[in-house]
Amino acid sequence: MSEGKLTGAKVAEHNSKDSCWVIVHGKAYDVTEFLPEHPGGQKIILKYAGKDATEEFEPIHPPDTLDKFLDQSKHLGPVDMSTVEQEEKAFDPEEASRQERIALMPSLEACYNLMDFEAVARQVMKKTAWAYYSSGADDEITMRENHAAFHKIWFRPRILVDVEHIDMSTTMLGTKCSIPFYVTATALGKLGHPEGEVVLTRAAHQHNVVQMIPTLASCSFDEIVDAKQGDQVQWLQLYVNKDREITRKIVQHAEKRGCKGLFITVDAPQLGRREKDMRSKFSDPGSNVQSGGDNIDRSQGAARAISSFIDPALSWKDIPWFKSITNMPIVLKGVQCVEDVLRAVEAGCDGVVLSNHGGRQLETARSGIEVLAEVMPALRERGWEKRIEVFVDGGVRRATDIIKALCLGATGIGIGRPFLYAMSAYGLNGVDRAMQLLKDEMEMNMRLIGATTVAELNPSLIDTRGLLGGHSGVVPSDTLGLGAYDPLEAPRFNEKPKL
Amino acid sequence: MSEGKLTGAKVAEHNSKDSCWVIVHGKAYDVTEFLPEHPGGQKIILKYAGKDATEEFEPIHPPDTLDKFLDQSKHLGPVDMSTVEQEEKAFDPEEASRQERIALMPSLEACYNLMDFEAVARQVMKKTAWAYYSSGADDEITMRENHAAFHKIWFRPRILVDVEHIDMSTTMLGTKCSIPFYVTATALGKLGHPEGEVVLTRAAHQHNVVQMIPTLASCSFDEIVDAKQGDQVQWLQLYVNKDREITRKIVQHAEKRGCKGLFITVDAPQLGRREKDMRSKFSDPGSNVQSGGDNIDRSQGAARAISSFIDPALSWKDIPWFKSITNMPIVLKGVQCVEDVLRAVEAGCDGVVLSNHGGRQLETARSGIEVLAEVMPALRERGWEKRIEVFVDGGVRRATDIIKALCLGATGIGIGRPFLYAMSAYGLNGVDRAMQLLKDEMEMNMRLIGATTVAELNPSLIDTRGLLGGHSGVVPSDTLGLGAYDPLEAPRFNEKPKL
Amino acid sequence: MSEGKLTGAKVAEHNSKDSCWVIVHGKAYDVTEFLPEHPGGQKIILKYAGKDATEEFEPIHPPDTLDKFLDQSKHLGPVDMSTVEQEEKAFDPEEASRQERIALMPSLEACYNLMDFEAVARQVMKKTAWAYYSSGADDEITMRENHAAFHKIWFRPRILVDVEHIDMSTTMLGTKCSIPFYVTATALGKLGHPEGEVVLTRAAHQHNVVQMIPTLASCSFDEIVDAKQGDQVQWLQLYVNKDREITRKIVQHAEKRGCKGLFITVDAPQLGRREKDMRSKFSDPGSNVQSGGDNIDRSQGAARAISSFIDPALSWKDIPWFKSITNMPIVLKGVQCVEDVLRAVEAGCDGVVLSNHGGRQLETARSGIEVLAEVMPALRERGWEKRIEVFVDGGVRRATDIIKALCLGATGIGIGRPFLYAMSAYGLNGVDRAMQLLKDEMEMNMRLIGATTVAELNPSLIDTRGLLGGHSGVVPSDTLGLGAYDPLEAPRFNEKPKL
Amino acid sequence: MSEGKLTGAKVAEHNSKDSCWVIVHGKAYDVTEFLPEHPGGQKIILKYAGKDATEEFEPIHPPDTLDKFLDQSKHLGPVDMSTVEQEEKAFDPEEASRQERIALMPSLEACYNLMDFEAVARQVMKKTAWAYYSSGADDEITMRENHAAFHKIWFRPRILVDVEHIDMSTTMLGTKCSIPFYVTATALGKLGHPEGEVVLTRAAHQHNVVQMIPTLASCSFDEIVDAKQGDQVQWLQLYVNKDREITRKIVQHAEKRGCKGLFITVDAPQLGRREKDMRSKFSDPGSNVQSGGDNIDRSQGAARAISSFIDPALSWKDIPWFKSITNMPIVLKGVQCVEDVLRAVEAGCDGVVLSNHGGRQLETARSGIEVLAEVMPALRERGWEKRIEVFVDGGVRRATDIIKALCLGATGIGIGRPFLYAMSAYGLNGVDRAMQLLKDEMEMNMRLIGATTVAELNPSLIDTRGLLGGHSGVVPSDTLGLGAYDPLEAPRFNEKPKL
Repeated sequence: MSEGKLTGAKVAEHNSKDSCWVIVHGKAYDVTEFLPEHPGGQKIILKYAGKDATEEFEPIHPPDTLDKFLDQSKHLGPVDMSTVEQEEKAFDPEEASRQERIALMPSLEACYNLMDFEAVARQVMKKTAWAYYSSGADDEITMRENHAAFHKIWFRPRILVDVEHIDMSTTMLGTKCSIPFYVTATALGKLGHPEGEVVLTRAAHQHNVVQMIPTLASCSFDEIVDAKQGDQVQWLQLYVNKDREITRKIVQHAEKRGCKGLFITVDAPQLGRREKDMRSKFSDPGSNVQSGGDNIDRSQGAARAISSFIDPALSWKDIPWFKSITNMPIVLKGVQCVEDVLRAVEAGCDGVVLSNHGGRQLETARSGIEVLAEVMPALRERGWEKRIEVFVDGGVRRATDIIKALCLGATGIGIGRPFLYAMSAYGLNGVDRAMQLLKDEMEMNMRLIGATTVAELNPSLIDTRGLLGGHSGVVPSDTLGLGAYDPLEAPRFNEKPKL
Repeated sequence: MSEGKLTGAKVAEHNSKDSCWVIVHGKAYDVTEFLPEHPGGQKIILKYAGKDATEEFEPIHPPDTLDKFLDQSKHLGPVDMSTVEQEEKAFDPEEASRQERIALMPSLEACYNLMDFEAVARQVMKKTAWAYYSSGADDEITMRENHAAFHKIWFRPRILVDVEHIDMSTTMLGTKCSIPFYVTATALGKLGHPEGEVVLTRAAHQHNVVQMIPTLASCSFDEIVDAKQGDQVQWLQLYVNKDREITRKIVQHAEKRGCKGLFITVDAPQLGRREKDMRSKFSDPGSNVQSGGDNIDRSQGAARAISSFIDPALSWKDIPWFKSITNMPIVLKGVQCVEDVLRAVEAGCDGVVLSNHGGRQLETARSGIEVLAEVMPALRERGWEKRIEVFVDGGVRRATDIIKALCLGATGIGIGRPFLYAMSAYGLNGVDRAMQLLKDEMEMNMRLIGATTVAELNPSLIDTRGLLGGHSGVVPSDTLGLGAYDPLEAPRFNEKPKL
Repeated sequence: MSEGKLTGAKVAEHNSKDSCWVIVHGKAYDVTEFLPEHPGGQKIILKYAGKDATEEFEPIHPPDTLDKFLDQSKHLGPVDMSTVEQEEKAFDPEEASRQERIALMPSLEACYNLMDFEAVARQVMKKTAWAYYSSGADDEITMRENHAAFHKIWFRPRILVDVEHIDMSTTMLGTKCSIPFYVTATALGKLGHPEGEVVLTRAAHQHNVVQMIPTLASCSFDEIVDAKQGDQVQWLQLYVNKDREITRKIVQHAEKRGCKGLFITVDAPQLGRREKDMRSKFSDPGSNVQSGGDNIDRSQGAARAISSFIDPALSWKDIPWFKSITNMPIVLKGVQCVEDVLRAVEAGCDGVVLSNHGGRQLETARSGIEVLAEVMPALRERGWEKRIEVFVDGGVRRATDIIKALCLGATGIGIGRPFLYAMSAYGLNGVDRAMQLLKDEMEMNMRLIGATTVAELNPSLIDTRGLLGGHSGVVPSDTLGLGAYDPLEAPRFNEKPKL
Repeated sequence: MSEGKLTGAKVAEHNSKDSCWVIVHGKAYDVTEFLPEHPGGQKIILKYAGKDATEEFEPIHPPDTLDKFLDQSKHLGPVDMSTVEQEEKAFDPEEASRQERIALMPSLEACYNLMDFEAVARQVMKKTAWAYYSSGADDEITMRENHAAFHKIWFRPRILVDVEHIDMSTTMLGTKCSIPFYVTATALGKLGHPEGEVVLTRAAHQHNVVQMIPTLASCSFDEIVDAKQGDQVQWLQLYVNKDREITRKIVQHAEKRGCKGLFITVDAPQLGRREKDMRSKFSDPGSNVQSGGDNIDRSQGAARAISSFIDPALSWKDIPWFKSITNMPIVLKGVQCVEDVLRAVEAGCDGVVLSNHGGRQLETARSGIEVLAEVMPALRERGWEKRIEVFVDGGVRRATDIIKALCLGATGIGIGRPFLYAMSAYGLNGVDRAMQLLKDEMEMNMRLIGATTVAELNPSLIDTRGLLGGHSGVVPSDTLGLGAYDPLEAPRFNEKPKL
């Protein structure tokens, strides 16, 4: 036993509800009394009672979590890790074949667009991590619609414009950016990469784009700010706590640390049901939070649990208070109809993000781009288009998507999952390449549409008639009739002579 | 031979058209004279002549059938079942693999939504039972459109509404319910579960929702009422008999037994052709009612046979008579256009159900939700929206579907098949979980749309433009052109080195 | 050698271009001089030079062909068939497997709708016959659209109508029919059934529907008329010959034999390209009319060849002449826009058939039902709806299709291919059942829509908004994005334990 | 060593960056100093340092390239090819199976339409060549939309028009053509056929259609002009060089050599990203221009490299200059909205080609045919329709496509890829047949639409409502619901009795 350290054996004695110790990052903690308060349920902790829980703990808790939420008296100090029994992991055929796929991964250069990263990530990420990132609400119709909606808008390019010099830079909330997209807030970055959100910070710096720091990051807020370089700009995404004092501290700390925008999430009074995520968790025998025995709402899954602090009572009445506690520009994230944008202007907000939370909250909520097409004419009609900055996110995969939003009148475009996928598959280099691909696409497409600056992008360059009819469907298929139909065939090649 | 009981051998002597006895639930019956009157044809009875017919008889006849329809003189009394020869069942590979699937059924907790129950039920139900429940008219286009139509309506959620407290309760026909859906009437519950409709009664009680009792239940009406608990509310669904006296008795008995609503089915003067059902029956060598030899209309199948009592002459002229025989609110079930809703108001009806009978009657009849979007503005225009309660059923699978109907102005939403599937797969627990899932979805989605009570749901919260274009189609595919197209591919993983 | 008959050996000597004899139905013919005139090309005849050509000749030539087109001096008289060498047929694996399928054919009772006959016929017909019947122009888009167009029209049924007694009868061109469909003209009936069109004549009699006799029948016109029973009514479909004298004789002969309507085909100045048909012929080594060596237009296929007599110069100027040579009502078959319907009224025609020739002529020609929706309002606007009878054909598979056309204002509905498929698969019984199925569907669906007579069917019973947008398409699919998407899954069944 | 010739061994000494010789067509060249200037990057040249590069060089460089771009002092003279070491090609399973497919190719007569050539070419072309020809921008949505857009336009044919004599001829830019299509410019013809563009020249002559000569041809401009026969007409497609003097020389040389039209490409200030092409190149280990090490933009691929001379600063201001240097009619190729067509009229251009460059440049640019429907009414409104000739290209596969464009008002229709595919698969005979098929289709379809001359084609013959709604989409599919649905089945054939 090294001097003063606990032994694995000692910790292992406390392996029950009655006395529950766990090891995290080489230190032991007594969580016995904390068990009933754990937002994710007791069960998942008890699985690690008396053991090293680091691997499970890491991606879903920022490193300052234990300091914040567990009384110092429960911090038992360092453990001599050489004395902790290594658990023999059972052979997991799924994990084995994932490792095999990782060994055979396509080289980064083989990724030519943002979908490519998603395709690779799907194969190389842990199933539960993939499920958390990739899942959407209910039938994931809105999630898929988000990208599909861009395909309803087509270009009306102008020719014979001198497009030798393209300037893609723009200004958002007073910050000059190299290109009008920003890295939007997404939770639990360490599920995809061991270093978490700081990878995105570094990539954002390389490309001079803004990063929005998520409340539910795996890294702590300060870690992410510390990773900032030079005059790099960050914004804060905020889930508002039922305890406004906590919220006040977070906001003022962020402002002090240099954040240049406060994005208050308003589309998540309750975190959505994401069945792909729930199903993936369910099949994980370790964290089976759905199978009863504790008092967690069985139908809502983990997302609900980790977000129980969010205040569903947040309302327009809170806006003046926010304005009173910070000088950061205030942006409402998750606005979904023109009426609320107008109200935000009246409430003195500096911006809105038209967003349905990546299709993770309300199913058949309209895409941000569709809402944008409804919002901008109403603002222009009132002469209000300069009174508020309108951002949009959801489903952006191509520079053409970005350009369409800019043509409609957006100030900036948020991108989330694609960078997570690039990071999960290829780390910083992946995010770097993803951003570079967007820039290359953007430069070329601005040339092809005949615009040399962001300011020149305007509604006459797009055809939005495809949005006017709303969401019509197609008559369900005539199974029998189609089945009887004998489809046409291409010329047949001759048969190979049999030997 | 136990005292006074008939022997199996005795019964077995009467195994022909000339003298036909059958055993049901341990008692023998002489059905010789009844043969030509059997609505399902003689053939199916003759198959069991001289034998025990209980298994076949059970799910499609309420227990009081023999008492009602067979003269007491033909009731021959108990049979000593130990003397009845047990038929060796031929090995049925399909049944064997069904039993295997049942043994491997997913746990109830793995069902996260109403579609999941359907997917499981499809695997574990008897083929003929599945076919009866799941089939629709003709090409089943209307049946599928019923759910798809909800996807043409998208949300326009409001943000920053205090949604801490959600009240989903509402009132239908004077009854306070915990949530605005009810269990609508569906036939032959014992096909899915040995106890039949009373399972639904119990689940409805657990969740404080109304159950509509079907005329064509497997359980008798009184059994279903007897299963009621506390102040649980039930309604009666009525197929009107050609003999109005029978109808009068049924209605007045129901009122006496406490039913709080009379739902007269008006979309089924003749029961629809359901080819999946017919085809499943056809391949059943036992009940081959299609293969000639008797005078049943060969093209119409069993549904037509069991419904021959329904009066196709029912008309608006009958409404005053109904009002004269009962004080229950009168609701027309199966209204399908605005003109008839207006007429129902004028005829003094208390409600209408906009419904196409689950897509089981007229093919390419419009969905209830589509008709609702046509009906409510017309009612409001006349200031009649309080004079009648408008219900809707068909295709409801998600709380978002319910909310969309409520936003349009529906009073209540009927759900049928999903509960049958949940019951068939998992019994009472299944229906319980199905209802709970809907409640959980409903609470969350009301939060996400920004409404705290049912009364706050209104048309400004939805985008219904997708319904305006009617049912447009898509140009049939360009088979050759598409076939020649070489689709884009994601990056390829390297090949595994061969050993 | 039987008395006076030719021997096979004698005939076999004449096996070349220089002297070419063939045997048909036991008689020999010298076709040497006829070779260059054969509309189908020399090659196909030379294949049978000196041999028995009956099997190939039969389905595509009416029995009076040789009498009509070959001078009597070339009729060489009977052959002693016992002396004709029987050709050993090479084993054809495709034919063998077809015979196997025929042996395992589903029973007729397993066909519940018109698509079922098509599905069976596709498996049991000879490939070339199937290809001739089932093929359409170019990409067969119009052919498929014909049925799909009916799915753009949805019902608005009326309830509480006394529908006990349904009367489906109607009157077309003065003839009372049991139901408003007729058997439209289709060519080469013997490809599907050895007896050819007379099978349809018999079925039409059984169901009291009108049959339209095709110009290009396999049976002779008189055979088809002779098969008529009682007061059965037939119409004549006419391809107009370049030699009007021939046309005059045909028309006047038809009138003398009792035909009650003259349907002049106006959509086929040239017979269409049907690539499925061409491809099927091409792969038939016998009748390889495409592979050069003769002077037939190689790109047009057989359809063009057998129709070379049709006059592409036929024009509106010919209508008075037709009126001068017959008292039969004159109906233009193949009208495709409202302008031409109005002109037909002005020209004094008694009817039009809105038709695109079953999708076999002009690709992306609109469906008859779509044109009907354009035509009837224009006629009503002018008060002309009684001046002309409007028929429609193409894509009719269900009684709902018929009812939709009637609601729009059609007088009668033509059905072609479905009866050919029924006949090809099951002979007369098949056609009988097909017609009965339509009657059963029709009776039920009229009940369900709330109409007791054909006269009660009217535009308020249907929703035709789906036709208004024309033929819009769908954005080509986002292959990469869809490929990266991980679809939701139903609950997984547990795995079977390995033994 | 034959007299004065270099030996292979001598050349092989110069196999590095420091001294790099290559052999092309039997002659050696010193490209050491040229390496950094090579538009395609150094790497691809260095792969052949000291070796014979002919095979790689051939298809992508016109034969006069070395004379033009490499100083005569670097031309080292003939090599004795018998002394050059033949590289043993590694066995390439993909190439082997391609050779097998070539051996089994369908006969030319089995191709009945333009899609058939594409289907065959896809199987028999080298993968990289196929990828270059067949690829489009980004997700290839525009590329596929180009053909699909024609399916949104349906016909309104006229009947009873005397269509015996059809005249398909027309006049474009003063040239009488047999049919209103022309061979549009496409790059790198030798990728598909060793003789390159001259094959198209010969076919164009056979069918009396105009050929547009591409700037980026594999053959030299003069070779293509030399291949011209009789009074055959050619046009010049021009990519404008940053160095206008070079452009001036090209234009004036073309005019001197008899070109009758100057088509200035205006939709390609930068060549598009075509990922299928990039991916195919990437997997080619030889020409891995993406994998870093040189300073070529890694994300843009080869297309960008070979087009670096194109001037992105080209603008409307250049038009007067073009008019000053040539008397050829000036046509802008790649116009994409009505505003620019009007401006072209005002600028005195003689024509425009409505085109999105075959879907190879800007993704979700609208199809030429859609733009045409927007342009022609605007021209007619101003009475300008005679002041400019409007051409259209993209997605044309059928004569019906051509007729639709003519009905809308196009003067001529460009066809590119289909002839490349026909040439790649079947050489001159393929292109000949492709053109003949179009002519046959065209003659028939003009008959069927009721027009005898191109002049008679007009907007009343088509229904373009399908274009009005823009590009609407379909709601993403309901995966779970569709998965649970049990589709209808056709009658099952009996099972084969087991032996």
